[in-house]
Amino acid sequence: MSSSEPADPARGLPAESEDERWMRTALELAAGGQGRVEPNPMVGCVIVKQGHAIGQGFHQAFGGPHAEIDALRSLESIANAAGATAYVTLEPCCHHGKTPPCSEALIEAGLARVVVAMPDPFPKVDGGGLSRLRQAGIEVQLGVCQHEAEALNAPYLKRLRTGMPWVIAKWAMTADGRIATRDGESQWITGPQSRHHVHRLRGRVDAIIAGMGTVIADDPRLDARLTSAQGDPVSPPRVATRVVICNRRLPPLQSRLMQTAREIPTWLFHSDALQQAPTLGLVELGAKVIHVSGDSLGPMIPEVLRYLGGHEMTNVMIEGGPTLLGSFLDTTTDRFLIDECHVYVGAKLFGGQASPGPIAGRGIGPITSAPQMRLQGVDRFDSDVRLIYRVTE
Amino acid sequence: MSSSEPADPARGLPAESEDERWMRTALELAAGGQGRVEPNPMVGCVIVKQGHAIGQGFHQAFGGPHAEIDALRSLESIANAAGATAYVTLEPCCHHGKTPPCSEALIEAGLARVVVAMPDPFPKVDGGGLSRLRQAGIEVQLGVCQHEAEALNAPYLKRLRTGMPWVIAKWAMTADGRIATRDGESQWITGPQSRHHVHRLRGRVDAIIAGMGTVIADDPRLDARLTSAQGDPVSPPRVATRVVICNRRLPPLQSRLMQTAREIPTWLFHSDALQQAPTLGLVELGAKVIHVSGDSLGPMIPEVLRYLGGHEMTNVMIEGGPTLLGSFLDTTTDRFLIDECHVYVGAKLFGGQASPGPIAGRGIGPITSAPQMRLQGVDRFDSDVRLIYRVTE
Repeated sequence: MSSSEPADPARGLPAESEDERWMRTALELAAGGQGRVEPNPMVGCVIVKQGHAIGQGFHQAFGGPHAEIDALRSLESIANAAGATAYVTLEPCCHHGKTPPCSEALIEAGLARVVVAMPDPFPKVDGGGLSRLRQAGIEVQLGVCQHEAEALNAPYLKRLRTGMPWVIAKWAMTADGRIATRDGESQWITGPQSRHHVHRLRGRVDAIIAGMGTVIADDPRLDARLTSAQGDPVSPPRVATRVVICNRRLPPLQSRLMQTAREIPTWLFHSDALQQAPTLGLVELGAKVIHVSGDSLGPMIPEVLRYLGGHEMTNVMIEGGPTLLGSFLDTTTDRFLIDECHVYVGAKLFGGQASPGPIAGRGIGPITSAPQMRLQGVDRFDSDVRLIYRVTE
Repeated sequence: MSSSEPADPARGLPAESEDERWMRTALELAAGGQGRVEPNPMVGCVIVKQGHAIGQGFHQAFGGPHAEIDALRSLESIANAAGATAYVTLEPCCHHGKTPPCSEALIEAGLARVVVAMPDPFPKVDGGGLSRLRQAGIEVQLGVCQHEAEALNAPYLKRLRTGMPWVIAKWAMTADGRIATRDGESQWITGPQSRHHVHRLRGRVDAIIAGMGTVIADDPRLDARLTSAQGDPVSPPRVATRVVICNRRLPPLQSRLMQTAREIPTWLFHSDALQQAPTLGLVELGAKVIHVSGDSLGPMIPEVLRYLGGHEMTNVMIEGGPTLLGSFLDTTTDRFLIDECHVYVGAKLFGGQASPGPIAGRGIGPITSAPQMRLQGVDRFDSDVRLIYRVTE
């Protein structure tokens, strides 16, 4: 997680309240579920009595207990919950899903007060959890650290609101903004620590999207290869589906992507232009072939995103070259299609009029129409820097 | 000053010795002279007795007392110096220059031990200061924090060694490495805090170098405009000479640069191709017109740098567009001509195949021939980031 900016009295901001302090602890706990809970939201919970945390928990994995249950189970005795305050980063649920409703569990445990960061717009909750708690006589406070809570679950909220997943664009460039030399060389712009972090990102998203340019040029595997400090392979939180947007051609059967399509889900979206192209060999190798209307990347991309959102994908990342990234930037629906950028800056200079930058396409004309972003995090890996931005429009 | 990396026992590095700790204090003091002491080196000095600093000083301004004298004067009584240890970041001088020799002052004050970070290669010193101290029976230790001391005075050392000034390239670009949209708009990529820091840099260098592309496109003043927190104008440490490299044309008489050439030194370097061009008007407005051989930027640039070095300029910055920066990168003597990069990254995306990057020219072909750099500092200004690099080759 990128760090949010805590209130700082020295800078003239209001001092953090007791409620905010506990809620921030709950938010930190919530973030521990990233990559394992989706399509559920990340949720954390702290139970506080007489100024001390007596229990804490978070939603650790999809299908597992919700944060409130995890926190109640962490109590030395469930009797301790009587009269305590629970800090929950999202409205407790009120429906029987994979687990019984959390609002009932909080009521049964005898909590006196429940502080909630934000309501859950999920249609089966949507205020119902808060009502249930209030009906039971529990004091409910809503909106503590709401901004941070919404930022944490922005991908979840976007999918609920738009049906599209959260789109993370990632690229590595030199300090002068190039992704390759004029000769086309690009390995390596950044060092092993940076590449490790790219694999971590790959290991927590639902899909890794590439275009055919990248498949042909780099023959990538587009999987998350993580190792422990001792060099042993480590399983990532989730296995991303490899998504290739094929507007003019389909991947070669002998590509690494296709040769691993039995082990790792591989979805090929093809255009109108390729509707007659032979796909049997690809399907036999394990790929799923999906037609979307449109004959170029621009119209195809929103279709692909809607399809991925419709298949419960919350976070997707673009591992594309400048053409694909350019199409993402050039194509807008009612908003920019890119939500977040992970920019790795390597300590090199390439220069050159003809050396490519990370995002091609038509690009922005008047500067006022450029996406505005907010810098979320800066991390240094040796002489590399990773900059994480969110598009604010 | 960008921070150096202190030794950190937690990361398995050797613990900092007492000598290193005092020398780092002296190095921090030394940095206080940046922008005011050049063409002299920055020097700091701490006088320590029985584990306590009893005096400290630094070379504050060209023509003023050297660090050792400044530190001796800070003592409650000069008698306290007897038997003490002086930590000096550069070999004390042994010649009568603008001030009497510091080695004599240290001997007279009765110092028992002098710890020196690095020898001074200045021809009139060059080991003579150390010899003089040793002859007088003072225990001399050389080389404590030598690497940091050399990094601090790298511009001074480069000029002594090569006759050329230290070249700082500065640019502002979007998070996707563009300096303008496809329509050519560039104001503003970064925010007011970043621009303030650019003015601070302008206010400590000896020269600001631009090409005619920038003069025509932006009609810049290329001066340091600094204000206090209250918005009042503040004088920068030094006034940089504006240097324009004119390979094809000369600045218009009505340009801001020429209209302010009486107040701010303005040097125009013109090529063989412009030797017959009329320059009388420019000279009448206050510019100095200098011919250098060569008819394109490539051959002109090293000539210009040698000329600036020969005129005691230690630090110069390039405020150029992509063409000038490209020529700096493409032209190498026995080394790259750029020593340091200040890269401002704004929180915007421009995209576009045709949108310009910061460094044009021919650029690097094979990746192994690209300048290697080391990241010296990362600073965040709102959603902007400043990355400072040094070229390590």
